[in-house]
Amino acid sequence: MKTIAFAGLGAMGRPMARNLLKAGFTVRGCDVNPAGLADLEAAGGISCASAAQAFAGADAIVLMVVNAAQAEAVLFTDDALAAAPAHAVICLMATCPPQQVQKIAGRVAATGRRFVDSPVSGGVVGAEAASLTIMAAAPADVFEAARPVLEAMGSRTLHVGDKPGQGATVKTVNQLLCGVHIAVAAEALSLAEKIGVDTRTMLGILVGTSAGSWMLKDRGPRMLESDPEVTSAVDIFVKDLGIVLEAGRETKAALPMTALAFQLFNSTSGRGAGAADDSQVIRAYRALNGTA
Amino acid sequence: MKTIAFAGLGAMGRPMARNLLKAGFTVRGCDVNPAGLADLEAAGGISCASAAQAFAGADAIVLMVVNAAQAEAVLFTDDALAAAPAHAVICLMATCPPQQVQKIAGRVAATGRRFVDSPVSGGVVGAEAASLTIMAAAPADVFEAARPVLEAMGSRTLHVGDKPGQGATVKTVNQLLCGVHIAVAAEALSLAEKIGVDTRTMLGILVGTSAGSWMLKDRGPRMLESDPEVTSAVDIFVKDLGIVLEAGRETKAALPMTALAFQLFNSTSGRGAGAADDSQVIRAYRALNGTA
Repeated sequence: MKTIAFAGLGAMGRPMARNLLKAGFTVRGCDVNPAGLADLEAAGGISCASAAQAFAGADAIVLMVVNAAQAEAVLFTDDALAAAPAHAVICLMATCPPQQVQKIAGRVAATGRRFVDSPVSGGVVGAEAASLTIMAAAPADVFEAARPVLEAMGSRTLHVGDKPGQGATVKTVNQLLCGVHIAVAAEALSLAEKIGVDTRTMLGILVGTSAGSWMLKDRGPRMLESDPEVTSAVDIFVKDLGIVLEAGRETKAALPMTALAFQLFNSTSGRGAGAADDSQVIRAYRALNGTA
Repeated sequence: MKTIAFAGLGAMGRPMARNLLKAGFTVRGCDVNPAGLADLEAAGGISCASAAQAFAGADAIVLMVVNAAQAEAVLFTDDALAAAPAHAVICLMATCPPQQVQKIAGRVAATGRRFVDSPVSGGVVGAEAASLTIMAAAPADVFEAARPVLEAMGSRTLHVGDKPGQGATVKTVNQLLCGVHIAVAAEALSLAEKIGVDTRTMLGILVGTSAGSWMLKDRGPRMLESDPEVTSAVDIFVKDLGIVLEAGRETKAALPMTALAFQLFNSTSGRGAGAADDSQVIRAYRALNGTA
């Protein structure tokens, strides 16, 4: 594993590609956005004009695009994947519905190449610090082959299963819990505001009780700020809870709490705060309660 | 503080009264259920025929009854509170809506006696181990007067505010988060079951990520058992989320996630599992998904 093709140089992809360069890999990037390519070149990477050009000579292909449709387009439009060596391992790291990951994995396998379903959590902060959690599903030997590449971008590389789609499933369930935990933290704090207690004192108590969650502790304090730093945007949860609901629809699983949390993030985005920190879903409650 | 009157010798009250006896207090109990009184006597307490009889000579009165209506009835029916010394401190430890706590506190204050709004969390396990978290609101001097009594029953006695109702508010928000966190853990695990992954492996991963919550870690494993030990029943959350919704109604705060979680616990109770462990709210999802 020496040469990596990297597709998708956005907010997450740019720092991930930089961490691959820091780890000593050669990185050949492709993106429709010239700014992403310029960033890669400035960091010592190689800018390529097309996916096929990036794939030439690559030992691994990392996909950090927006969704499954983009991943499929990058790999298969104009038969781009045929330009990659036969031993190349394809690492799909974008958040996609499990069924679509299985479909892409099947198309990759049909070309004789290896595939790792490897979505991440940790956001831009984790991407920059190379501290992402990576939920990888692949046969053990394929996972081991890809491990040096994955470990250059994350601090916790978990082998969650041997079938493509299982990584996406863990990520899907992860996002379901994260999104609902943020929304309910907002509901709890907005109730406390209405009753009239010191919300900071209360939050300090609740994070240490059976009411605690990782999100309550992390996002709770930012809910009490009027315009907090953006570590992950409201629109990320509009997208990710949309993927969770799609997974529920494809498997016919009822997801009422997720559906409701989606509405609250979607409403917050609709009121113009899609780019605000996701803690600001509390604005949907303030709008409902007339305390905005 | 030597003599305690204890009203409400149920599943929580009995072990709490026993812990007061172990700490060296004299405990005078009253309850409509003779079994509770027999348990208290067996532990070395004094069984009383009425609230007024229990209150005579009591330095503190602990109320661990089912709800605010019972607390009011115990204190004021036949003017029972008049039998208590003028220096008695009344500790309302049952879970009640904040507004009703304020009302009871006002009636107690009108008799010249002191009041501590002091609900608990930790369930029967915490009551037995004297490890309850106690969320106390009262003026500082009143809190200090009651502290030895409270500390005999809990391991974490927090002074959350100086106004009656603030303890109940913290407890209300605590229960909102706990109930929704249990329900969403059930939603997440039922989705994983439908997609088809090893739910135990997945749960082991998720409790350590940003998707984690105290409830996911505690109740999650019991959701995967068919008939787990009951540490807290489904019907406790039917009651407690009912109190949260009442607090929302009284303050005109919108609580959509709580309302939905209530429906899931209520449905589980309606299908005959009200006395089952609260983790079994997952049965509502299995019913919805046809996997029961």
